[in-house]
Amino acid sequence: MGNKIWKGRIEKNTDKTVDKFTCSIDVDKSLYLYDLTGTAAYAIGLNKIGIIPDDELKKIIYGLKTVKKNIEEGSIDTSLYEDIHSLVESELGKIIGDAGMKIHTGRSRNDQVVLDEKLFVKDALIDIISKILALQGNILKIAESKIDIIIPAYTHMQKAQPVLLSHYFLSFFKKFERDTDNLFFNFETCDYMPLGAAACAGSGYKLDRKLLKELLEFKDLDSNSMDIVGNRDFIIDFIYSCSKIMLHLSSLCEDLIIYNTSEFSFIEIDEDFCTGSSIMPQKKNPDVLELIRGKSSLVIGSLMQSMILLKGLPSTYNRDLQEDKKILLGAYKETSASVEIFSKLLEKIKFNSIKINNALKEGFLEATDIADYLVKKGESFRKAHNIVGKIVRFCIDKKISFKDLEMEELKNYSPYFESDIHDMVEIHSCISSKKVECGTEKGQVILNIESGKKKIKDSWNKLKDLIKRTPKFEKIIKYIDA
Amino acid sequence: MGNKIWKGRIEKNTDKTVDKFTCSIDVDKSLYLYDLTGTAAYAIGLNKIGIIPDDELKKIIYGLKTVKKNIEEGSIDTSLYEDIHSLVESELGKIIGDAGMKIHTGRSRNDQVVLDEKLFVKDALIDIISKILALQGNILKIAESKIDIIIPAYTHMQKAQPVLLSHYFLSFFKKFERDTDNLFFNFETCDYMPLGAAACAGSGYKLDRKLLKELLEFKDLDSNSMDIVGNRDFIIDFIYSCSKIMLHLSSLCEDLIIYNTSEFSFIEIDEDFCTGSSIMPQKKNPDVLELIRGKSSLVIGSLMQSMILLKGLPSTYNRDLQEDKKILLGAYKETSASVEIFSKLLEKIKFNSIKINNALKEGFLEATDIADYLVKKGESFRKAHNIVGKIVRFCIDKKISFKDLEMEELKNYSPYFESDIHDMVEIHSCISSKKVECGTEKGQVILNIESGKKKIKDSWNKLKDLIKRTPKFEKIIKYIDA
Amino acid sequence: MGNKIWKGRIEKNTDKTVDKFTCSIDVDKSLYLYDLTGTAAYAIGLNKIGIIPDDELKKIIYGLKTVKKNIEEGSIDTSLYEDIHSLVESELGKIIGDAGMKIHTGRSRNDQVVLDEKLFVKDALIDIISKILALQGNILKIAESKIDIIIPAYTHMQKAQPVLLSHYFLSFFKKFERDTDNLFFNFETCDYMPLGAAACAGSGYKLDRKLLKELLEFKDLDSNSMDIVGNRDFIIDFIYSCSKIMLHLSSLCEDLIIYNTSEFSFIEIDEDFCTGSSIMPQKKNPDVLELIRGKSSLVIGSLMQSMILLKGLPSTYNRDLQEDKKILLGAYKETSASVEIFSKLLEKIKFNSIKINNALKEGFLEATDIADYLVKKGESFRKAHNIVGKIVRFCIDKKISFKDLEMEELKNYSPYFESDIHDMVEIHSCISSKKVECGTEKGQVILNIESGKKKIKDSWNKLKDLIKRTPKFEKIIKYIDA
Amino acid sequence: MGNKIWKGRIEKNTDKTVDKFTCSIDVDKSLYLYDLTGTAAYAIGLNKIGIIPDDELKKIIYGLKTVKKNIEEGSIDTSLYEDIHSLVESELGKIIGDAGMKIHTGRSRNDQVVLDEKLFVKDALIDIISKILALQGNILKIAESKIDIIIPAYTHMQKAQPVLLSHYFLSFFKKFERDTDNLFFNFETCDYMPLGAAACAGSGYKLDRKLLKELLEFKDLDSNSMDIVGNRDFIIDFIYSCSKIMLHLSSLCEDLIIYNTSEFSFIEIDEDFCTGSSIMPQKKNPDVLELIRGKSSLVIGSLMQSMILLKGLPSTYNRDLQEDKKILLGAYKETSASVEIFSKLLEKIKFNSIKINNALKEGFLEATDIADYLVKKGESFRKAHNIVGKIVRFCIDKKISFKDLEMEELKNYSPYFESDIHDMVEIHSCISSKKVECGTEKGQVILNIESGKKKIKDSWNKLKDLIKRTPKFEKIIKYIDA
Repeated sequence: MGNKIWKGRIEKNTDKTVDKFTCSIDVDKSLYLYDLTGTAAYAIGLNKIGIIPDDELKKIIYGLKTVKKNIEEGSIDTSLYEDIHSLVESELGKIIGDAGMKIHTGRSRNDQVVLDEKLFVKDALIDIISKILALQGNILKIAESKIDIIIPAYTHMQKAQPVLLSHYFLSFFKKFERDTDNLFFNFETCDYMPLGAAACAGSGYKLDRKLLKELLEFKDLDSNSMDIVGNRDFIIDFIYSCSKIMLHLSSLCEDLIIYNTSEFSFIEIDEDFCTGSSIMPQKKNPDVLELIRGKSSLVIGSLMQSMILLKGLPSTYNRDLQEDKKILLGAYKETSASVEIFSKLLEKIKFNSIKINNALKEGFLEATDIADYLVKKGESFRKAHNIVGKIVRFCIDKKISFKDLEMEELKNYSPYFESDIHDMVEIHSCISSKKVECGTEKGQVILNIESGKKKIKDSWNKLKDLIKRTPKFEKIIKYIDA
Repeated sequence: MGNKIWKGRIEKNTDKTVDKFTCSIDVDKSLYLYDLTGTAAYAIGLNKIGIIPDDELKKIIYGLKTVKKNIEEGSIDTSLYEDIHSLVESELGKIIGDAGMKIHTGRSRNDQVVLDEKLFVKDALIDIISKILALQGNILKIAESKIDIIIPAYTHMQKAQPVLLSHYFLSFFKKFERDTDNLFFNFETCDYMPLGAAACAGSGYKLDRKLLKELLEFKDLDSNSMDIVGNRDFIIDFIYSCSKIMLHLSSLCEDLIIYNTSEFSFIEIDEDFCTGSSIMPQKKNPDVLELIRGKSSLVIGSLMQSMILLKGLPSTYNRDLQEDKKILLGAYKETSASVEIFSKLLEKIKFNSIKINNALKEGFLEATDIADYLVKKGESFRKAHNIVGKIVRFCIDKKISFKDLEMEELKNYSPYFESDIHDMVEIHSCISSKKVECGTEKGQVILNIESGKKKIKDSWNKLKDLIKRTPKFEKIIKYIDA
Repeated sequence: MGNKIWKGRIEKNTDKTVDKFTCSIDVDKSLYLYDLTGTAAYAIGLNKIGIIPDDELKKIIYGLKTVKKNIEEGSIDTSLYEDIHSLVESELGKIIGDAGMKIHTGRSRNDQVVLDEKLFVKDALIDIISKILALQGNILKIAESKIDIIIPAYTHMQKAQPVLLSHYFLSFFKKFERDTDNLFFNFETCDYMPLGAAACAGSGYKLDRKLLKELLEFKDLDSNSMDIVGNRDFIIDFIYSCSKIMLHLSSLCEDLIIYNTSEFSFIEIDEDFCTGSSIMPQKKNPDVLELIRGKSSLVIGSLMQSMILLKGLPSTYNRDLQEDKKILLGAYKETSASVEIFSKLLEKIKFNSIKINNALKEGFLEATDIADYLVKKGESFRKAHNIVGKIVRFCIDKKISFKDLEMEELKNYSPYFESDIHDMVEIHSCISSKKVECGTEKGQVILNIESGKKKIKDSWNKLKDLIKRTPKFEKIIKYIDA
Repeated sequence: MGNKIWKGRIEKNTDKTVDKFTCSIDVDKSLYLYDLTGTAAYAIGLNKIGIIPDDELKKIIYGLKTVKKNIEEGSIDTSLYEDIHSLVESELGKIIGDAGMKIHTGRSRNDQVVLDEKLFVKDALIDIISKILALQGNILKIAESKIDIIIPAYTHMQKAQPVLLSHYFLSFFKKFERDTDNLFFNFETCDYMPLGAAACAGSGYKLDRKLLKELLEFKDLDSNSMDIVGNRDFIIDFIYSCSKIMLHLSSLCEDLIIYNTSEFSFIEIDEDFCTGSSIMPQKKNPDVLELIRGKSSLVIGSLMQSMILLKGLPSTYNRDLQEDKKILLGAYKETSASVEIFSKLLEKIKFNSIKINNALKEGFLEATDIADYLVKKGESFRKAHNIVGKIVRFCIDKKISFKDLEMEELKNYSPYFESDIHDMVEIHSCISSKKVECGTEKGQVILNIESGKKKIKDSWNKLKDLIKRTPKFEKIIKYIDA
């Protein structure tokens, strides 16, 4: 492994097993752009306070551009380095010589890695928000175009009451809406500039942190150096938000896997998202849904990993923290891919009206409405509930449905039954009676679709602002020409 | 077990083992006040839409007051009931007869339990915010009164650089500040009124949900019945915030346990917060700190429990969700007690100046400042770092400290060394050179104490507003006289 | 709180909040019998080496019997004590005076609590093994009595191939068999006597540990005092085994919840194990299955709690460990209750042959057998698989089943099709062709039922031995008369 | 992506995003040797029952050897394939044509992947056992060579009693001994041959599974096809054992990190295992210890991931299971590397006798022995404990040590004090009085070192047997010549 930047104090070279064990380059090389961006801004900052003269700054910027090019072309052997910070510093030195040796002035890997991670998290948040919004858009499309499909709603996986299919999908729109709110909140929490913290006590140079903040597009300065270098709250917050997204997806996938069984057959998943069996020729398995459900375990487990990592750790920086990058990158990758592919799958999902209609005919989905009918005629709810329970039991024993009962039989259960009963508890009436703002009545659902559209539009606008609040390498290096 | 409210449909009585297995009364009886409050508001709501006439409403309110009194006096055998909702409904019936049979009209335990849990979480958030703010207040008191104590900062548990003790404590102030922000955000996320969702499709009655929202002091209405009955996001959000608080405390406790060893001896923990050994007469163990560290595991594990519970669960209500109450109540209790006792412990902590001063003398805490000195004289940082590394190694071998080196020796390492070197790297200079906004220089630290005070004051004011946004049983029942 | 046993060194009384925070009596009072049993044995041990004279030993034994009686009658106010060890020592002192002050000689709460927990775990293992064996017995009963029911097996929740219902249930028998093996292994791992470790360095008295081992029915002596006092491996092993049991149950419950939907309707769960809805009169929900699935989250999360507790903890005893009791007792309770009630539920489960038979008719369950047919006639498997895949697609498009195809049509797909094809791929042939030892052919399944019976019988015998390897208070106190 | 082996049934080609999302080749390519080994054995099995004629078998074996060579030379573009099973089957087909199309006869990826994973786990167990045994060997070397070093033992991180350094290290020997026992048990649990299960119902061919078992070196046949294809118990068992090893290491690392602070300075970690700081020139950080502690979080979190994956999953095979490979391989890699490097670090650790001796002089480590002294003179233990507690308090107030007390002063506390007191409580006497089998007395410790040696030797022998119980590709393919 190449020259260690700390080799003055430690005489021996660490042995190769140790190098391999301690190095993080395999993971953190994917942060190279953030490291280069941060370093470019920092060089400008050092120039501002006189540590780096103008000519050296130009060299450094030239050098960083070259390092970037070399990394992107794959011409650097990354395996020679301990981490991305050492790589950038050493490669820079190779290109521009001694001028490169100043860029670490008043900076430590402790604050540098926090910067890189924060820039990564901000971009990751933007990526995931955009994918969630796209998914929400697809949900609204289904909700709008399938507004007339009625499905049975289930509680305890038992048929409960009829609802609009749109209402069902909007229930997930709502969950993802909360997720979006979380992600936006995470962005704000993360958005404090860490440079200047150095190792833990603060930089020994009077850096112009406000300039750095502006160059790096942060909202504000982070304010305590000891906190900064050990702070990983923004990382676990991000993974937590990912975990919740995956929980919501796991629940939706579970529903769809069940609705996709031949027994339910409510939906058909496009073959694009299914795979077959190596042995059973007839199989068309909902693999993508299962994999997302499976990946939810990875992401939730990642949250656990990051929290166990921090539990009982002394404050400020400890090397344990290096492991957080693997966890963070993994959780991001799985979540981003899952949301994206689920959104695509949803676009092509088909609904099997015949099977759904058949399902509505069994299971006494109108029972609650019958009880409500009696209440509206004057019965108390608890008694009405009891009466209808007995009627259901009677029907099950007789293998008949509620509609098969004669008025006379009904009267035996309650004098409140009248001839309007059958109209009132027909499936469409069951829907139209749920007129509360959160209910499944068509008008309410349409209102909720409309407010959903507005909400998404606002979120897209908000997201555009966030995108402006992330630094671009190309933009920063233009600063020196200004 | 008493009469089941659903016994119409199901003929057999469940056997006793099943009753014991399925009942949740042991846990949810502690939610009785929320259930009564919600029921009172709901009765008023039913009165508004004509389901419950005025005279019956009065009876119901009277009945609920009596149930409350009976519960608080311990005169109800809670073990007879399946859950708190059944208890309230049945006991009400015993007191006021048939009028009580109407209060479940258009309501389900599915939305009722969400209401109870939301009211609980809102109160729990307020309690924990108030305790965190009190803790932050105690941190500021220490930061202010001990402003002149310098301690070694550690990274990797190795001496790093000198910092103000106040700076150290402010680093935790910052962490708890982020926690407070989280908790306030959680409150907003939780603050949507769920009633009207009924079982899952929405209520069959045109409830005046805005009235319910006002009576129950919610910010707004929740908007999708299928989402509402299965939504536990506000619970895992709360437990997540608790987990982060406990992580921060676990780290602080770890520090203090180490600083409290006889080898460090930086602090002395008041005997109030220590216990002895049953066998070793000399022991004075920091039990409270250890228990908090231990309890952090419980709370983080609770987060895991709640997330595993939800993973892959079909949407809407499934009985699995019943288990969330035990998890929620436990996580709250452990967190609240930990923050409270830690705050008390902090008030009485003592600092051992002699031991701390001795610790500052060893470990080459000034090394970074020596490198900075060379940089300021003209050396590049990477070379300066290397030079000082070699000097440290030389000193260790010779068992001397940096101050023991002659100028001549120093000149051998770098021509930049001059006679001002020793003043520049004296401990106080190391502190005063960290003038960046996040640094440990005294002026900056004082500024941060001041902004901390302002932040706390604002938070207390914000908290007062939240307190107004929670319903009181006594206030609601007065509504009927108006 | 009562007198602390360590109050010599610490002058102040801890304040009440601290008492409440540090005390564990609420949890560990349920270990009283283990503490009394261990103390009785220890007293005999101290008598053996002359610390406690014969007359005092008699007093102590009398005292312990009285304490036991008082606890069981509820006449001791447990809330006055810090933990069960203090309670026993203090209550003993009240009854017999000074003689009681010797029982802690050469013993620490550190080794005492390990003893109590080991005795608890050994009993808990026996309890859970017995319940798992009972459950396995019930599985075998179903497997035997329902040997002629054929069901569709599912992979990816899609119909795969026909199997015997017995084969399905035996797959869970197998999982529980591995669980039993684990539990037996846990018993052996746990079965080392800890007393003599004292606080951490070993007792300062030459205890006759072999006598203690015999009295307390341990297999062998534990061998390193520093390990003993911090060792919680036997606890996490136990919780891990519980977690695996719960994972297996969660999977079985998930299957049954789905088989119990009205769409599948393969099974009917006895009403004893279902509950209704507070609002929907028709509901009969499989609550017990859902609760078990939910409780699996608690137990798995408990494992996490216990592991986080230990992560990064300094060795030997730290007060953090106190929290392990709550976790242990909770995991045990949930697992034991879940296995027990599931076993009962299984006894009364009914199978709906008509629905199951209908399910066998759709989904091309015979497809693999058709491919196998072609292979046996001479086709390579991969080609056969491809051919059958195309046939299935054709049938789906035409909405026909395989049996509706004419020989001519079949010949178009492969010349290997002959007139015996329909017999060979009829459902019963699909079963009878799976003759490998692990296959679903009836003969093999019967063999597996038989070997299952033998395995259970052996396990019951092994369990009887384990029961002998646990101490009984009554037996120990008889020792002094011998 | 190349030809799918299941493309008969599914017409469309899955799109590229789906391919990327569903493929596992990046992870499972590292299982290639197991897949080839299993396939070779399976081909021999198919030959035995006449599916594959002799000449084709020879071709297949030749083909598999070629595929192996190509993979190892890197000449196959793995990214073209969905998984390692498809890769092997397709590449084989390219080399030998149609003969390759038979090797999947009566086999499914469902049982094939279980085979691959079992073979992997068996090798992984062997690797980790060997590394743990090496570590235990190093522990014994220290225990033996440093037998005369006395250190303070800590409980609650407070000085407790003096112990031999060897005794301290043996406490970890003991923990790793339990780990070894676990790992051996895991091997037995895993060692059942899964082939023949096919997709889930069992193979439709009468395979000679005993032959397969022998070729693949399994102990016995696995016995239920539905269990086999969904069984991941052996994987979570393995990860659980890894987690416990990492817990033990995390505790040991925590101790050593603290002993390595400049305040303790008990040990010096070889520079080989330390790294410096990018900014602070004096730093020599115990990075390897911190990274191991950090990696413990990854492994424990992996256990969680694998358990969440399985929670509530329907039985048999679901695609979620694919994610288990990433978890398994990660947990193995981190554990194996951590044990290996820790073992190396331990070899070079140095102990600082001067610092350790100084530490023994403070903290009243002899207090328990003073109490024991009084007991041996006739005092009851509880009173003796109380007396010594008061003496300690007096000494602290006077800032003196126990040895500074005059006999007269001591007599004030207890008449039992006599002139032999100072000899009896001198540090060496404190050690020599702990003569119980688990105590720190030198003779006992030496006995424990000896029994440790024997235990390791036995384990190495046992391990040699295990190594024989794993299949080798080269050996299997020789079978066809026999």
